[in-house]
Order: sequence, then C-alpha cells, then structure tokens
Amino acid sequence: MTEDFDAVDVIVAKRDGHRLSDAQIDWVVGAYTRGVVADEQMSALAMAILLNGMSRAEIARWTAAMIASGERLDFSGLSRPTADKHSTGGVGDKITLPLAPLVAACGVAVPQLSGRGLGHTGGTLDKMESIPGWRAALTNEEMLAQLRDLGAVICQAGSGLAPADRKLYALRDVTGTVEAIPLIASSIMSKKIAEGTGALVLDVKVGSGAFMHDEARARELATTMVALGTDAGVRTVALLTDMDTPLGLTAGNALEVRESLEVLAGGGPADVVGLTVTLAREMLAAAGRPDEDPAAALADGRAMDTWRAMVRAQGGDPDASLPVAHHTQEVRAAATGVLTQVDAMAVGIAAWRLGAGRARKEDRVQAGAGVELLAKPGDRVTAGQVVARLHTDTPDRFARALNALAGTFVVRDETESLPPPRPLVLDRIA
Amino acid sequence: MTEDFDAVDVIVAKRDGHRLSDAQIDWVVGAYTRGVVADEQMSALAMAILLNGMSRAEIARWTAAMIASGERLDFSGLSRPTADKHSTGGVGDKITLPLAPLVAACGVAVPQLSGRGLGHTGGTLDKMESIPGWRAALTNEEMLAQLRDLGAVICQAGSGLAPADRKLYALRDVTGTVEAIPLIASSIMSKKIAEGTGALVLDVKVGSGAFMHDEARARELATTMVALGTDAGVRTVALLTDMDTPLGLTAGNALEVRESLEVLAGGGPADVVGLTVTLAREMLAAAGRPDEDPAAALADGRAMDTWRAMVRAQGGDPDASLPVAHHTQEVRAAATGVLTQVDAMAVGIAAWRLGAGRARKEDRVQAGAGVELLAKPGDRVTAGQVVARLHTDTPDRFARALNALAGTFVVRDETESLPPPRPLVLDRIA
Repeated sequence: MTEDFDAVDVIVAKRDGHRLSDAQIDWVVGAYTRGVVADEQMSALAMAILLNGMSRAEIARWTAAMIASGERLDFSGLSRPTADKHSTGGVGDKITLPLAPLVAACGVAVPQLSGRGLGHTGGTLDKMESIPGWRAALTNEEMLAQLRDLGAVICQAGSGLAPADRKLYALRDVTGTVEAIPLIASSIMSKKIAEGTGALVLDVKVGSGAFMHDEARARELATTMVALGTDAGVRTVALLTDMDTPLGLTAGNALEVRESLEVLAGGGPADVVGLTVTLAREMLAAAGRPDEDPAAALADGRAMDTWRAMVRAQGGDPDASLPVAHHTQEVRAAATGVLTQVDAMAVGIAAWRLGAGRARKEDRVQAGAGVELLAKPGDRVTAGQVVARLHTDTPDRFARALNALAGTFVVRDETESLPPPRPLVLDRIA
Repeated sequence: MTEDFDAVDVIVAKRDGHRLSDAQIDWVVGAYTRGVVADEQMSALAMAILLNGMSRAEIARWTAAMIASGERLDFSGLSRPTADKHSTGGVGDKITLPLAPLVAACGVAVPQLSGRGLGHTGGTLDKMESIPGWRAALTNEEMLAQLRDLGAVICQAGSGLAPADRKLYALRDVTGTVEAIPLIASSIMSKKIAEGTGALVLDVKVGSGAFMHDEARARELATTMVALGTDAGVRTVALLTDMDTPLGLTAGNALEVRESLEVLAGGGPADVVGLTVTLAREMLAAAGRPDEDPAAALADGRAMDTWRAMVRAQGGDPDASLPVAHHTQEVRAAATGVLTQVDAMAVGIAAWRLGAGRARKEDRVQAGAGVELLAKPGDRVTAGQVVARLHTDTPDRFARALNALAGTFVVRDETESLPPPRPLVLDRIA
C-alpha cells in the first residue's frame, strides 16, 4: 500500500533540492499514471528534477515505480539465456537488424522490443516495416513462441510495459524536459527491466547526430543505466560509440534494410559489420556464452538463415523486392581532395525531410526515402564526383533536404594535416 | 504583431539559464492566455523561472505582457489624484478597511480592487461581506461613479484585468511554483498597473504569519515591485512590516470589521492605528498631498463618515449588527509572567479552522468565526487568565483550532531578560 501525498509537497521538495523519499516516488509515479497527479504538476516536477538532479537511489526507485505501473514479462521458461540491446539512437543505426538474428544464431535469445522513430533518428520498426508483409505487433504469446522457436524477435513493445513511462515521455517531449539524465535513464531501463531480459548491452551514442552531443553527459547516462540494470539483476554493459558520422552508407528505412542484408550476407560497410560483431560479442558474453564467434556466424550464413525465418514468422517475405523511391537527386563534391567530414545530424535531417522520418507521432514514413552516401570520411574525391544520392517519392522535398546538407561534405586539400579518425567505440562501461 | 515561437524553445531557453527576449515573453504570455501554450508547458516554464530567475528587464516585460492580456482602467478623468495599497497578506490584516475611507477623507481617491482569502490569511472582500447587504461586485461604471462621488471603493477586481495572471496564478497554486519572486511581483504589479492607480503603497509582510518568512526575500520582492511600478509611471513605495505577531486583536471576518470600526471611531489597538496612519501618510505623499494629516481625519470622524457612505453605496447597512458566532471557547494562560510571543501563523490557522477562511476556492466562510486575542506580547498575565476567545458556528472545529494554538501563547518569568520588541515597520523602500 502506498500512502497518500500531496503533489505540491512532492514538487516543492524536489524544487528545494531535497531527496524524494521512496514513498513519495512510489506515490507520485503511480498517481500520475492513474491521472490523480495532473500533467501540469508532473511537468513542473520533471523540470525540478532536470535542474536539481536525483541521487542514484532516487533514480532506482523512480525506475522501479515505473516498472510497477505495468506488467513484467518472464523469459525464464526459455531453454536459452536472453540478451537485449538498446541504442540511444543515431543516424543510419540499423545495427539491430543484423544483430538480433546473429546473436540468436549463436544460441542466445534476443527479445528486441522496439519503437518507431521521431525526429532525425529512424526507428527500428519503421525500417522493418519496409519489408512487404512484415508486421510489428505481436501478442506476448506470439513473441514468446517466436523466441522459443527461432531465438529472435523484433517487435513492437506492448502497451502493458511501464505505461507510466509512455505517458511521461509524451509529456517531456512538449515541456522541454527530455534532457534530464535521471528521466532518460529510468525511461529506457524501466522498459528493459520490465521486458525481462537477462542481459543488456547499451549502445550510448555520442556526437553531432546523437541525442547526447557531449561525451561527459553520455558517460553519465551510461554509468547511471549500467548501475540501474545491475541493481535490478540484469547483467548490463554499455559502450560509448561515435555518432559524428552516420553509421554505414545509408539513412532511410528500405535503404537500411538493404544494407543490413549485405551485412548478413557477409559483406556490407566495415563500420556496420564491426559494430554489429562487437555488440554481439558483448551480448553473448553478458549472457554467459563468451566462446561463441559471431563473425563466423555472419560468414557462414547462419545469421542470414535466422533473419529469413524471423521475417517469415512475422508475415514478411524475405525474398520480396524492397520499396524504391520514385525520385532521386545527386549531391556532388565541391572540390578535389580528401572528404574529411560528413555530419551525422545533417544527414539525419536530410533523410527525415525526404520522408524517411516523422515530425509528429501521427505522420507516415516513406519506405524508400532517405540518403545514400557514396563516399565516407577519408575517401579521396574529385570535384563534381557524386558523393550522395537522395531518395524520395515527393520531389518537392529535395530543396529542403539539400538545404540541410549544405556544408556537410567537407573536402580538404590532401596536403593539409588531418585529425586522426575518431574510433567507433569510444569506451566501455561495465 | 508578435512572432510565432515554439513553446519548447522558450522553456529550454529559460531552463538553460538564458534571458528570454521581449518577443518570446510577449508570445508565451499571450499564447498561454489564448490556450495555445498548454498548462503543462507553462508550469515547466514557471519552474524554470523559479529556479533560474529572471532579470529586471525580463520581469518588466513579463508584467507588461500580462497587462496587455486584458483591459486597463483609467482614472485620469477624476478631479483628484488616486492612490492604492497592496498587502502581501497577513493574519489580522484589516488595514484596508479603515485605510481606504481615511485616505479618501484626506482628498485622495482610493480604488481598492480586492480579492477573497485562501488559506490562513483572510481576504478583504470576505471581511466586508460580513456587513449585512454589502456587495463586492461592481461594474467599472459603478466603481468610477463611487470613486467620483465618495473617493473610495473597496470592490472585487473585475475579470478583465490581467486575465493571464488569473490563469497563471491558478496554475502556480497547484504546481509548486507560487514562490518565484519574478512571478509574484509581476502578478501583483500587473493588476495594480492595469487598474490605473497613480500611486501605490506596498505593505510587504515578513514573519511567521506572512507569505515571506525571510526578510531578505521580502526585501527582494519589495525592491522588484517598486522598480516595476516606478518604470510603469506609478509612484510606488514599499514598507516591510512585521508579521510574526497578528495585527490587532482579531483574526476573522466580522471580528475584524468590528475592530476596524473602533479605529474609525478614534480608538482601536495601537498597532492597527499606527500602521493605518503610516500607510495613509505614504499614500497621501505619493499622491502629491504630503501635508494632509490622517491622524486628524481619524480623530474628527471624517474617515468614519466616508466609511459609512462607502458601505451604504454598495448596499450595506453601516448601522446593522454584525454577525456573531454561535459558540465560543476560551484559551487560558498556562503560567504567570509576561506573554512574550503569540505566533501569527498559529492564530491564522486557528481562525481558518474555525471557519473564517477557506481551504478551496469554492468553500464558503463563516462571517462570525475567528480568534479574538485578550492579551498581546508584552502583557502581564496570570495562570488561568483568558488570553484568547475562539468563535465558530460549528463547535466540532474547536479541537482542531486549539491544536493549532498549542504552544502559541508563550509566557516567561518576568525576571528573564526579554528580547526587545521588533518594530512594526522594519524598512521603507522607495
């Protein structure tokens, strides 16, 4: 039983820099979910949390209260261990697509409950939905059955998991309170802990195209989430990875599925392959299978077999042609030299404007729209060479996308000294 | 014309410690009044303002935007100057009742637009409404006519003045954002400037029974309001006055009217008389009549004559008996010695619990309920002597009122050295 509190007292406590008690946190999260605490009260509290912070103990209790607002899944009946991955979101981040079947092919079940994209980073479900026939919504029973049979499922997170978080996230989005680390960490971790995974690998993106531009804040978020997961009995590891440059050569739904298929076929861009294998190793190790070799499972086609079975199980046709946008436009290098920089945020915004993403939750996305890169930082280019191709069904969008890309492809004279390339994996926090 | 902004951008700017531009302030206040900015957005902004503050220029612009949300009154057609008084609220603060007719009797018109009470401090309108027949609601035309004919009006502030403030105040009340000095100052001053008074005297209360317990914060509020008024062309002065002890000997609606009548008749408690005359002198001086003598106007009955005309003009009978509560209970001194302390907050809460105040806006108040003090700090008392009398129509409330008063009447042995009494007027800010 929770006691009854007054919402104003809880807000004032955090406003004045005090710690909230366990009972206050349990009450305010529960009462907000039930509609007893009003949106305008929770937004004032969220702003006070953003500006005054929360202790580790408060964040842990807040996360537990969000979990308690809904159902919890249980995978303990499966014959194999489970591991999940969460990325804080980046441009061209299609890693979940090859990663889930790859880890499953190595004997660890992957319950990948995903969401749709909002803004300049794409959503995993939007990408998967460009596969003809594939459906995102599964019942808990269908999901469990697929995990048992195939070891991997990418599907929509059910509405029963942490409903407090869904309500709170929508509120934060319109009240300038998204950026509070305690609220970001508890939002992500409440869903992952409620989902019931045994191990979790967090891919915390840092850079221009990421939610966190600043490495210190990304590290704080990663550390907070690892502590939350560990305290809740989930073996949790975080990697800080670079998001100054888009991941791979594509940003856009069907474009990214196509690139994922190249990786599953044993090819694909080196950065996508590298990060997929690195994350797979972390997931396998956290799930107690450190001796599995994911690189071999990519090379010998086992991961591709699992992918095909996984797509088919959710109504998709793995052999169907993927949607192609009706119109393309090319972007050319302005000078001859070395391409030193391709800004991830600019590419993300261009893909979004071309129709690959949505501005509001209600918007539909174009399956074929997006940006295809033909050169990456470090490549030699000649003036007039095509460095990117834009795809859309609605050609009136080209102008705004090109606008977003102005100055994005930076070419320098080869004789200039260049900064060393930043490694993709910046740090590991366990 | 105001530009269009995004509410989240305005919230984020203040959240991150930036100054809001004039155009942002104009837009957000206007859009909130029109319902374009949602309550949950304004409450997040209010919390950011509370925690990160506002510059003088921002507060001035915010106040101007609140004024611009509604109508402005104009008293320039009156043949005499105008002066108003605002108190931040205290226990037993009935000063407006003798003050308005007193200043009017000295030749300066007093447009006293007042409100009802909420919580432990009473409202002027609640007090006046204990006079049989008296009505608070006047049209702007009735108010102007009464000011022209009698020079004084105490009435309900119309809904046309600063509607943004009314909406924002209700929001702050439920979101823990009442205590922001920029928002308190702009709330009070927007209504007083829109009301059109030429001069304004602020009575900023400090102490246990006041909204501001801390003298430094009260001084900051007073200084902010004086600057706002002065910049808007209103001759503004503030007094910081003590509210550790109730003002006068009564707290409760009809009880306070009775005490005010004593003052108007040339008697009454010294502190009430003293503060009334001090504030009257300030109002007269600010209105350009520094040579008038309010003490004489109290003594010779001119203030009482204006009071009687003023009550009659609003339907009240100045000769009618005032309501008396059906039940009383006495509070006795616990020891013999000197009464050193009577806590204002405790007396205010007791009066409120007896039925003199309301917990919610919809509640009705009891005209006869309240606390009557029979001894004040500095008085010699004997054990068992009656030091207070509680009044209510609902005797089941006595227990909770007595509870609030536990420890309130502090009696010390005469041989103990006593702290010197705090002066009633602590400072003057002009």
